Amino acid sequence: MDISLFEQYESNVRGYIRSFPAVFDTATSATIVDVEGKRYIDFFGGAGSLNYGHNHPLINQALITYIQRNGITNALDKATVAKHDFISAFQSIILKPRKMDYKIQFVGPTGANGVETALKLARKMKKRSNVIAFTNAYHGHSLGALAVTGNEFYHGDYYDVPRNVNKMPYDNYFDHDMDSVDMLRHYLGDGSSGYELPAAVIVESIQGEGGINVASVGWLQKLSALCKEMDILLIMDEIQVGNGRTGDYFSFERAGIMPDIITLSKSIGTGMPMSIVLMKPSVDVWSPGEHTGTFRGNSYAFIAGAAALELWRNDDFSRSIRAKGKQVEAAFKDFQARFPGWITDVRGLGMIWGLESLVEGFCNEVSKQAFQRGLMMETAGASDQVLKFLGPLVISETELNEGFEILTDAILAAVAVFEKTGRTPCAA
Amino acid sequence: MDISLFEQYESNVRGYIRSFPAVFDTATSATIVDVEGKRYIDFFGGAGSLNYGHNHPLINQALITYIQRNGITNALDKATVAKHDFISAFQSIILKPRKMDYKIQFVGPTGANGVETALKLARKMKKRSNVIAFTNAYHGHSLGALAVTGNEFYHGDYYDVPRNVNKMPYDNYFDHDMDSVDMLRHYLGDGSSGYELPAAVIVESIQGEGGINVASVGWLQKLSALCKEMDILLIMDEIQVGNGRTGDYFSFERAGIMPDIITLSKSIGTGMPMSIVLMKPSVDVWSPGEHTGTFRGNSYAFIAGAAALELWRNDDFSRSIRAKGKQVEAAFKDFQARFPGWITDVRGLGMIWGLESLVEGFCNEVSKQAFQRGLMMETAGASDQVLKFLGPLVISETELNEGFEILTDAILAAVAVFEKTGRTPCAA
Amino acid sequence: MDISLFEQYESNVRGYIRSFPAVFDTATSATIVDVEGKRYIDFFGGAGSLNYGHNHPLINQALITYIQRNGITNALDKATVAKHDFISAFQSIILKPRKMDYKIQFVGPTGANGVETALKLARKMKKRSNVIAFTNAYHGHSLGALAVTGNEFYHGDYYDVPRNVNKMPYDNYFDHDMDSVDMLRHYLGDGSSGYELPAAVIVESIQGEGGINVASVGWLQKLSALCKEMDILLIMDEIQVGNGRTGDYFSFERAGIMPDIITLSKSIGTGMPMSIVLMKPSVDVWSPGEHTGTFRGNSYAFIAGAAALELWRNDDFSRSIRAKGKQVEAAFKDFQARFPGWITDVRGLGMIWGLESLVEGFCNEVSKQAFQRGLMMETAGASDQVLKFLGPLVISETELNEGFEILTDAILAAVAVFEKTGRTPCAA
Amino acid sequence: MDISLFEQYESNVRGYIRSFPAVFDTATSATIVDVEGKRYIDFFGGAGSLNYGHNHPLINQALITYIQRNGITNALDKATVAKHDFISAFQSIILKPRKMDYKIQFVGPTGANGVETALKLARKMKKRSNVIAFTNAYHGHSLGALAVTGNEFYHGDYYDVPRNVNKMPYDNYFDHDMDSVDMLRHYLGDGSSGYELPAAVIVESIQGEGGINVASVGWLQKLSALCKEMDILLIMDEIQVGNGRTGDYFSFERAGIMPDIITLSKSIGTGMPMSIVLMKPSVDVWSPGEHTGTFRGNSYAFIAGAAALELWRNDDFSRSIRAKGKQVEAAFKDFQARFPGWITDVRGLGMIWGLESLVEGFCNEVSKQAFQRGLMMETAGASDQVLKFLGPLVISETELNEGFEILTDAILAAVAVFEKTGRTPCAA
Repeated sequence: MDISLFEQYESNVRGYIRSFPAVFDTATSATIVDVEGKRYIDFFGGAGSLNYGHNHPLINQALITYIQRNGITNALDKATVAKHDFISAFQSIILKPRKMDYKIQFVGPTGANGVETALKLARKMKKRSNVIAFTNAYHGHSLGALAVTGNEFYHGDYYDVPRNVNKMPYDNYFDHDMDSVDMLRHYLGDGSSGYELPAAVIVESIQGEGGINVASVGWLQKLSALCKEMDILLIMDEIQVGNGRTGDYFSFERAGIMPDIITLSKSIGTGMPMSIVLMKPSVDVWSPGEHTGTFRGNSYAFIAGAAALELWRNDDFSRSIRAKGKQVEAAFKDFQARFPGWITDVRGLGMIWGLESLVEGFCNEVSKQAFQRGLMMETAGASDQVLKFLGPLVISETELNEGFEILTDAILAAVAVFEKTGRTPCAA
Repeated sequence: MDISLFEQYESNVRGYIRSFPAVFDTATSATIVDVEGKRYIDFFGGAGSLNYGHNHPLINQALITYIQRNGITNALDKATVAKHDFISAFQSIILKPRKMDYKIQFVGPTGANGVETALKLARKMKKRSNVIAFTNAYHGHSLGALAVTGNEFYHGDYYDVPRNVNKMPYDNYFDHDMDSVDMLRHYLGDGSSGYELPAAVIVESIQGEGGINVASVGWLQKLSALCKEMDILLIMDEIQVGNGRTGDYFSFERAGIMPDIITLSKSIGTGMPMSIVLMKPSVDVWSPGEHTGTFRGNSYAFIAGAAALELWRNDDFSRSIRAKGKQVEAAFKDFQARFPGWITDVRGLGMIWGLESLVEGFCNEVSKQAFQRGLMMETAGASDQVLKFLGPLVISETELNEGFEILTDAILAAVAVFEKTGRTPCAA
Repeated sequence: MDISLFEQYESNVRGYIRSFPAVFDTATSATIVDVEGKRYIDFFGGAGSLNYGHNHPLINQALITYIQRNGITNALDKATVAKHDFISAFQSIILKPRKMDYKIQFVGPTGANGVETALKLARKMKKRSNVIAFTNAYHGHSLGALAVTGNEFYHGDYYDVPRNVNKMPYDNYFDHDMDSVDMLRHYLGDGSSGYELPAAVIVESIQGEGGINVASVGWLQKLSALCKEMDILLIMDEIQVGNGRTGDYFSFERAGIMPDIITLSKSIGTGMPMSIVLMKPSVDVWSPGEHTGTFRGNSYAFIAGAAALELWRNDDFSRSIRAKGKQVEAAFKDFQARFPGWITDVRGLGMIWGLESLVEGFCNEVSKQAFQRGLMMETAGASDQVLKFLGPLVISETELNEGFEILTDAILAAVAVFEKTGRTPCAA
Repeated sequence: MDISLFEQYESNVRGYIRSFPAVFDTATSATIVDVEGKRYIDFFGGAGSLNYGHNHPLINQALITYIQRNGITNALDKATVAKHDFISAFQSIILKPRKMDYKIQFVGPTGANGVETALKLARKMKKRSNVIAFTNAYHGHSLGALAVTGNEFYHGDYYDVPRNVNKMPYDNYFDHDMDSVDMLRHYLGDGSSGYELPAAVIVESIQGEGGINVASVGWLQKLSALCKEMDILLIMDEIQVGNGRTGDYFSFERAGIMPDIITLSKSIGTGMPMSIVLMKPSVDVWSPGEHTGTFRGNSYAFIAGAAALELWRNDDFSRSIRAKGKQVEAAFKDFQARFPGWITDVRGLGMIWGLESLVEGFCNEVSKQAFQRGLMMETAGASDQVLKFLGPLVISETELNEGFEILTDAILAAVAVFEKTGRTPCAA
C-alpha cells in the first residue's frame, strides 16, 4: 500500500497528507498505527472531532450491536430509535443538569452547516442581515460560514465577497486600554457609525484555528450583556471547544452565560459526521422543512454520540480533563522556560493549549520533527505560529508523557536545524 | 418509546417526521420496521442516499470487520487504508472503464458542500463570478448552494440574496419552439444582454426535487457543446441521480458527455455522510488546504462505499436497475391510464420516476394514504405535484409489487376522499 | 485653442471627443459651430438632452432674466419661486391633461440618480430586493443603476456584481413564438423557477442605447397588466425617450398605461442637469430626507424647463414631431432600399430612429465620414451596429435635409472604403 | 405664491423645506430673500455648494455673456471652449502652483457620481473589491456611494446591503490610547483578521455631515503613509471641504499629502451641478467611454467655475477665509463659554465650524428660532447634535455679525423654551 496513489488521484487541495505523510490504518485511545506498523501519539485529535479517543470500546460495541441488529442507517429527519435515544440522553445528561432550556435542530452533518443554520435563523428571526464576527474567527468553508471566517487564504473576490458582516477585534486583540465590547457598544449606539444593529454576534469562547486565543470570562459576560441589552442574538460556536474540551461540557459555562444559539459538531458524533444547533425556544422560528439536508439522520453518529454522553453522567470526566489539562499546561510552560525566544507564549484552557513561536517557520519545523519521531501535532494561527495540543480527552498518562518526550526531542531538533542555518530566537 | 419526545425537544424545522409519523427502528433491503413492529415498503430510499438498500449484508459485514479491528474513524484528509481502498476501487471500477480521467476531491460530507466546492473551484479557475443555474434546480442549503437552488421557500432577503447567478429555463421548461441552450447562446453572444460570460453552468441531468424533469440527450449534448465553445465549465450535479440511479453509474453517460466537474454524494457512502467532487486534471487549480473540513475522512463511509462499488464490477447491476425501472414505468403508466385526470403525467428514467397530479393536494393525500398502509413515498416539485419513486436499486420483486399494490389502494382512497369533498380530476 | 489640452489633462476615459474631434463653441437650433467656424448639423441631440434644441431663444431669455434679477441658484430641496413655477407648469401642462395623478420627487440631477431613487423606493415599499430588467437595457452608471444595465463593457467583477436582478428578454429579443411577458408570468407563477417575485420591473419603452428597439404596444400593455396582477411596481424609464421624443410627452402614452414610477431627466432641464421621479401617491412611502443630494434644486434648470414646457400647451409641438419623424423614417427607408446589405434594418418611432448595419464597423465608418462632412451622429447597440438619429425635436426642415444629404454622402463614402478593402454587404 | 403647492405635489421625501419653510426668491452674497421680502443671513451655504456666495457679480456676468453668445450648453464629454477654459484655469491656478500632477475626469454632475467613479476606478485598478470607509462618513446616496456612508437612516436591507466595505473609526472616534490607523495597520498585517487588503481607503479630512469632526494632521499623514506602504489607493473626498472651505484650496494641504484620487463637487461649479475626479496619471487606467453620463459637459458650470477660480490667482482669498474663520471660531467659543452645558463643544477649521449640544433636540430648537429671526443654519451629526456653520466664503463682515447676533438671540430663545419645559443643560 503506497501513498503515491493519493498523489496520483487526489486533488491538489489535499493538505494534512502533506504534513503527516503516512498511510494510517488503525487507532485506539490516543495512539495511531500506520501500515508500516509505526505508532504515533495523537496530539491532533481529529482537529477536535476525537475528544472521546479512537475506537473507544464502549462506543464501538454500541455501534456494532446496532449494525448487527440492522438498525436504520440514515433517516433524514424522521423519528428513529437511534435519534430518540440521543435526544433523550442529551436532554437528561447535558441540558437538564445545566438548567438549559433549548430546542435541538439536527442539521447537515458538518460544523459549517451548523453555522449556516445559526446565521440563517438569526437573520430570519431578527429581520436584519448584518452579523458581527471576530478577528481570527474560524467558522467553516461554505459561503455563509466563510463570510464570518477570518483567514484570507480561504477567500476570493470571485466567489465569496462578504455580505454585511462587520469584523470586530477579539478579546485582547489589541494591546490597548479599550475593550472591544465597549467599542462595539459605541459603534451600535452611534447611528452614523456604519455599524448597523446586527441580527447576531457569532463567537468562539476560545479560538482554536485562530491560534488558541482564550476570551476572558469578563469579556464573554460583557458581550452577552450587550447582546441582551441591544436585542442581538448571541451565537456561541462550540464546534471545536465544546464537547468537554475545556473541562465543562460547553466552553462558555465558565462565564455563566446562556447564548441564544449554540452550534455543536466535531466530537458530538465521536468522529462520525454530525452537527446540531441548539436554540432557545423563543428563537425557534423555523417553518417545517425550511432548512433541510440528506444526512441529518446519521444514526451511527447518534448511537455513538449517545454512548459517549454516558461519560458525562457524573463529574469524573470533567475532573480528569482538568487534571490532564494542568499537566499539559505545566509541560508547555516548561518548554517556554527551557526554550526562551523559541517558545514565546503558552496559552490555553482545559485540554486545548498552544505553544506560540514568533520565529518564522519554527512551529512547522517542530511539527515535522515530531511526526518523524511518532507524534502527530498540527500548527494553528494565520502564519502557523502556534503548535496546537488537541489530543483526545481520554488520552492516558502514558500516552501524554510519551508525547511530551517526543515533543521535547522535536523542539531540540528544530532548534538545532534553525541554529545551523543561522536563524535566531526572538529577543526577550 | 414515544414520538412526543421529538415534538418536545426538536426544532419546529423538522419535516419528514410530520409526513411519516412513526418511530423507525430497523430496516433491510427496501423494508423498514417501526417500534410497533409495523413494516413499510420504502419507495423513498433516503432521498437517494440508500440506492444500495438498507443494511446490505456485504456492506454491514465490511463495516463491522473494520470497526472490530479498530480501523481509524476520521482522518480528515490524511491517507488511510480505508481511503486508499475507496480511491482504488473508484478508479478501477468506475472511472477507468469509462475512460474518465478525473481527480477526486474529498469534501465536507454533504452534497451542498460538494456544490459549494465545485462552484468555488470554477469561479477561482475562470476568474468570473457569474454562474448559470436552471429553473427548478436543487443543489442544497448552504448559502453558496442555495444561490443556485430554485425553490423560493428556502430563500430569504435577509440571508441569501443571490450573487451573480443567472437562471435559465431547464430543458422543456417552456412549451415553445426555442431551445433554452439556444437562448443561452444568444444571451452570451450579445454583449449587452446582461448575461455575462459565466465561470460555469451547473445542472442536474434529471431534476429530482424539481419534479422529476428529465433532460433530453440532445439538450445535454448541446449544453456541453456550448460550454466547450464558450470556455465555460460544465458542472454536472450527480448527487441524486448518479450512483446508478438511471441504470448507468453516472446519469449523464446516456448523453456521451464529459463534464468538467462532477459532484457525487448521497449513496456514495451507502447512507453514511460522504461527498466527493471529480474534476478534470486541468481544472484542479486548488492550492493545498484551500478548501477544508473536518469530516472529509469518514472512513466508515469509505469502507462501505468501496464494498458497494463491487456491485459495479460487471453489468448485472445496471441490467437489473433497467429491468426494475421498466417495471416501475409500466406500473406508473397503468396508474395514469387508470386514473385519468388524477394522474396527469408520468416521467422518469431508470429507477427515478414521478407520478404527476395537477389536482392540488392530491399527491400529498396519496402519500398520506400510502403511509397508513405501509408504503413510504414522498412528493416532489414546488407545489408537491409529483409522487416520487426513489426506492433502493436493490429492491426485490416482492417488495416492488407489494409497493405497487399499496400505492393502488392509496390512490383509490385518495380519489375517494377527493370525490367525497367535491374535488374533481383535471379535464383531459 | 487646441484639442491637445484635453489629451494632456483629461482622463483616458474621455469618449465622444474621440468620435467627434473638434472644439465646439456655439450652437443654435440643430447647428453647432466649432472654434474653426465649421458648422455641424446635430443628429446627436446631446444624447437626448437637447430635445428643445441649442439655445432656444425663449429659454435663453428666461434664463438671462432670472440671472439678472439674482434669482437663487441652488436651493437643495427648499421651496423657491423657480421650483414653484416648474411644478406648477408640469402639473397643469403635462400631468393634469393626461389625468395623471403623480407626486414629483426632485432627485440628484442625473438620470442614474433617478433610476437609483426609483429602485430604492420600490424595494423599500415592497420589502423585496429582486427587480426585473431587460436585455440591452441602459439605465446608467452608478452601482444601483448599473446593476440593471446590460452592456458588459461597463461591468466588472471587482466593483459591481449585480445583486438580485433578473434579466428578461426585451420585446422581440428572440425570434420565437413565446412572448417574454408570458415567460416572466410563467417564471413568477412557478415557486421553484428561481425567479422571485420582484419589487419592480424597470423598462424603457424604446431602448435607445440598446440599439433603437421599439417595444410594441401589446407587449407594454401585457407587461403592465402582469405587474398589476402580481403586485409588482412598473417603473418606466423615460430618461431618453420621454420629453416628447416619440411625439407624445411620455413615450408610453401610445400604450395607454399608467406606470407606478416614472423617471425623467435629459431634456427635462433643456440640457442643464436635472432629474425627477414621478410616483403614484400610494407609492410615495419615503420618510422626509431619506434620499437627498446637493443639486436637487438647480433653479436654472427649473426656469429653463418651465419655459420649455410652454411648447406643450397645445398640440402643435406633438404634430410637428410626428411630421418630422415621418421624414426621418422615409429618408432612412430610402437608405435601406438604396444600400441593401449595408443598411440591414430601419427601426424607430417619432423622432428616434436607427439605421442598422450588420456589417462590422460600417456604422462607425459612416459616423466618421459624416462628421468630416459636418454631421454629428453617433452609433448605438452593443457592437455599434446602429446609427442613431436623436436630433433636436425643433430641428428645422433645412437642417434636416442638409443632414440627410451629408448622411447620403457619408454612406457612399463608407461603402467605397469598405469595398476598396474587400469587405462586403450582408447577403439578402 | 404659496408653499402649499409643494406639499400637494412634491414627494414626502422633501426635507429642507420643512426646516426652512419659506418660498425663497433671490439672493446675493450671503443674504437670501423670500417672496414676502424677508431677508435671511445664510450660514448654510447650499450645504457647501455656495462657497462663492449667491450670484457673485463676476460669475453672473460671465454666465450671461456666455448665454448671450449662444455658447453650447451641454456637450457630454466632447471638447468645448467652455471646458477648455475651465481645464486651463484649473491646471494653471490650482494644480500647477501646488505641484500636483493629476488627470481630470469630468463625471456625472453630483458628488455621489464622483465617489462612485473613484471607487470603481480604484477597484478596477487594484483588482480588489474591498474598501475602507470611516465612522460618520458621508459620501452620497447612490448605492456605491451609500455603501461607504455611515448614517443608518439612509440604509435598508432591501436595497443596499454593503458589499465588502470595512468601517474603521475616524480620528479620535474612540477616547482611547490606540490610533485608528494603527488599528488598521494591525488588521491588514494579520492575514486572519478578516480585514482584506483593500483597493482604497476613502476619507474626508473633515467630516461635515458627520458632525464637524476634524482629522488631525498627524492622523492624515499616518493614513497616507500606511496606504503607500501597503499599496492601497488613498481617496480624499473633498466634495464638502475642498474648494477653499478650510482656507487652502484642498482641505488636505495642511497635511502635505498627495492622495491618489480626489473627488470635488459642490462649489466647483459655483452652485451649478458639476463634479470632477482627479487622479494621479498612473491611476488613470480607464478605457475610453468606460464610465459615462449625459451631464458631464455642463458648460454653464464650467464658465462659472472658471470665473470663480480667478479668486485663487493670489493669496488674498485664502487669507480672508482664514481671517473670517477666526471670527467664527471666536464667536462660537464665546457661545460655549456663555452657555455652558447647552453648548458642549466647538469644533472646526477655516470656515467650517460646529456648535455641539449634547442636550437632545437643542440644536434643532436653535435652528428653528434662528430661522424665525432671519438666519439659515442647519444641524449635522447622526442625532442632529451639531449646529453647522457653512456660510459662503465671501460672506461680508456685516452679514457675519448680523448672523452672530441672530444666533445669540436664537440660543437664548432656545434655552428659554427648554428651561420652561424642565429640560436641563449637560453637567460640566
